[in-house]
Amino acid sequence: MTIPLGPFAGRTIGELGRELRAGRTTAEELARASLDAVARLDPALNSFVGVDAGGALAAAREADRELAGGADRGPLHGIPVGVKDLVEVAGLPATMGSRHFTGYVPGADAACVTRLREAGAVIVGKTTTHEFAYGPTGDCSANGPSRNPWDPARMSGGSSGGSAAAVAAGLVPLAIGTDTGGSVRIPAALCGVAGFKPAYGAIPAGGVFPLARSFDHVGVLARTAGDCLLAYRPLSGREVGPARRPPRVAWLDPAPLHACDPEVTRVATEAAGAMGKVALPQEVADGLREVYVTVQSAEAADVHAERVARAPELFQPEVLDRLKGAMEVPAWRYVRAVARLPRLAEAAEALFEEHDVLALPTVPLTAPLLGLREVELGGRPVAVRAALLALTSPWNVLGFPALSVPAGAVAGLPVGLQLVCRPGDEDLLAAAAPGAEA
Amino acid sequence: MTIPLGPFAGRTIGELGRELRAGRTTAEELARASLDAVARLDPALNSFVGVDAGGALAAAREADRELAGGADRGPLHGIPVGVKDLVEVAGLPATMGSRHFTGYVPGADAACVTRLREAGAVIVGKTTTHEFAYGPTGDCSANGPSRNPWDPARMSGGSSGGSAAAVAAGLVPLAIGTDTGGSVRIPAALCGVAGFKPAYGAIPAGGVFPLARSFDHVGVLARTAGDCLLAYRPLSGREVGPARRPPRVAWLDPAPLHACDPEVTRVATEAAGAMGKVALPQEVADGLREVYVTVQSAEAADVHAERVARAPELFQPEVLDRLKGAMEVPAWRYVRAVARLPRLAEAAEALFEEHDVLALPTVPLTAPLLGLREVELGGRPVAVRAALLALTSPWNVLGFPALSVPAGAVAGLPVGLQLVCRPGDEDLLAAAAPGAEA
Repeated sequence: MTIPLGPFAGRTIGELGRELRAGRTTAEELARASLDAVARLDPALNSFVGVDAGGALAAAREADRELAGGADRGPLHGIPVGVKDLVEVAGLPATMGSRHFTGYVPGADAACVTRLREAGAVIVGKTTTHEFAYGPTGDCSANGPSRNPWDPARMSGGSSGGSAAAVAAGLVPLAIGTDTGGSVRIPAALCGVAGFKPAYGAIPAGGVFPLARSFDHVGVLARTAGDCLLAYRPLSGREVGPARRPPRVAWLDPAPLHACDPEVTRVATEAAGAMGKVALPQEVADGLREVYVTVQSAEAADVHAERVARAPELFQPEVLDRLKGAMEVPAWRYVRAVARLPRLAEAAEALFEEHDVLALPTVPLTAPLLGLREVELGGRPVAVRAALLALTSPWNVLGFPALSVPAGAVAGLPVGLQLVCRPGDEDLLAAAAPGAEA
Repeated sequence: MTIPLGPFAGRTIGELGRELRAGRTTAEELARASLDAVARLDPALNSFVGVDAGGALAAAREADRELAGGADRGPLHGIPVGVKDLVEVAGLPATMGSRHFTGYVPGADAACVTRLREAGAVIVGKTTTHEFAYGPTGDCSANGPSRNPWDPARMSGGSSGGSAAAVAAGLVPLAIGTDTGGSVRIPAALCGVAGFKPAYGAIPAGGVFPLARSFDHVGVLARTAGDCLLAYRPLSGREVGPARRPPRVAWLDPAPLHACDPEVTRVATEAAGAMGKVALPQEVADGLREVYVTVQSAEAADVHAERVARAPELFQPEVLDRLKGAMEVPAWRYVRAVARLPRLAEAAEALFEEHDVLALPTVPLTAPLLGLREVELGGRPVAVRAALLALTSPWNVLGFPALSVPAGAVAGLPVGLQLVCRPGDEDLLAAAAPGAEA
């Protein structure tokens, strides 16, 4: 990394919890450390839109009092958390990354924030999002681009770019993100942290500004897969036990979905250690992309049609252009996309016949430079947005749990390994992560 | 009526069944009477696209043999039936009313045809449909317009115009129709017969060419409400017992849905004999129309997009124009329409708080002249298509059972009374029909 790291770099939530309970630190100290690191280090990253020092310290002191009194809320008790600025936190401005929401202060917590508080987590502040989460690059926001801690001239990825950069830089050990086509996993991969998009609906989306309701997921970013799962449990209210068996992992050939940088593929393949190989038929891969683009465009246009008509000048130009295009998608294509889904899902299910977990790169390339919209891949120019989304969006269409974990680096930039399972197999997913205890 | 009537005019399926079982007639005689009447009388009506004399007589003889042998398949045993030419019957051409299907002969029966055969019915032939069922006027078809037996210069209504005209003229005692926005009830009302569109999905739609899948219903046309219910039972496989109680009928003010000819309203009101009055809030009425138009357009465009692109010249010009318009409906409006539906359904449910059945005119006017596209209503010009659909399409959006029964006449042309209930209250719906046994 080229920038100094914060206090949570290299530390897991599990370790922090043990130190808290051993009396070697306090929630207040952790909150102060986080706030201090944001103040010192974040100007170079822009991962936070704003912090809530008063609220965080008050919550931390309460967490300390509870622990001292023997009331232990579990693994997130006293842990500092960043919350994507698309998610409402009572009393804190929520900009959604857009000038349309300048000055907006929600009066209530999103459902996932309520669950964070119930689990004892300490909300430090709001993290930068691509405007309305409508973009995987993280560099189009009323709050400016979030930058990649590995090279601040490069993208964090998006749309949960601030959450990924903040965790990667050690400013917080945990952050909330949202993921409609890869918005948790893409920045996790580009910034070298873990990001988990659970099954559709597993973490409630109430109080989260919608992008495309059929594919919107709430997820988490942390240093390790294990930390993601620690946070997933209280956020979803679902238990994930120890793996019932060693996970049977198959390498999913990414080629039908998108061309990949061969070095990225090599690093991800080595990290995966898969036993078998499977591939999506080309027409299924094409179908999943077509369904993703059509449904996401239509639903995003529904959310924003009035804003586009009444105050187009408040959008970032690229986001406005994309929304205008989305408004032109004809309804019959949406009808057809929705009708196509069951057969695509059936074809995807078939990949799991002899395996529990599919492994593939999270993103076909490493972090591009900020603002870049075309790169060369496999000797051909490719669109950056489409490339970033190509390997993650199928799992939003299908609603399958998908986890990105750090797999290594290419030319000093992180590579993510993506692991995908069917809903209910989260135990096997967690066990398949490199470094997970067998 | 201005044309001579066929052998089934003024006769119910119940009567025919009693005569069959008493040996006063045979299924073969009934089939021959129907075939003969079609040959003699249908040139003036164009209610049939084609008959299947051989198949009908063979089926009728088999029905006679079974009855003679003591095998009684129930009320439809030996009864001649016309089947809308949008519904596949094995071995008979199915044109869908379109030159796109010239020469097409399906190899299998639609699910509802299978059920008709299992109930012992005798399929006489295929009845004229508006092209692809995409129009309520019944006068745009590759097979020419179906004509109204009460005045052959006037519309039968549509899209199941042939089925309605054939029953009204006494050519068959029963016919199958389909109803996406009123296509069973509108021609039933304009031709002075009964038409029943059951709850969504109650009669399976397999083998029926789709118009707009979310709203497509299979229904029946016959002389009386009782005959419709007789046919509904074997077609749906659902029992409708005697009314659990006297039905509480409310008059539903049609004004929020559309302007009505005051004479039509008067005749329908008198026939309804309703105890109470209810009204849809204007925004709910507007919402139901908007949802109907948007969803129906989008889904119809999905069905026909390739035909519009590759062989537009094969469509009737009006149908082509409408499909081209439907292809322009933006997807975000479809998304919004679908999202709006639960609240509209809730508002519609509220109409039933103190009543079992809603009564309103089926159509706000009597049969217009063939080809007419604008009429005056309440002193203002109104579009004929929109007027015809206005009072029936809300019940397709909601999926509620809706029955049109003859209510009387205005200036020698039939008026329909529409009765609507919630799914499961079909017994009360049947009991609410004028003339039903108490």
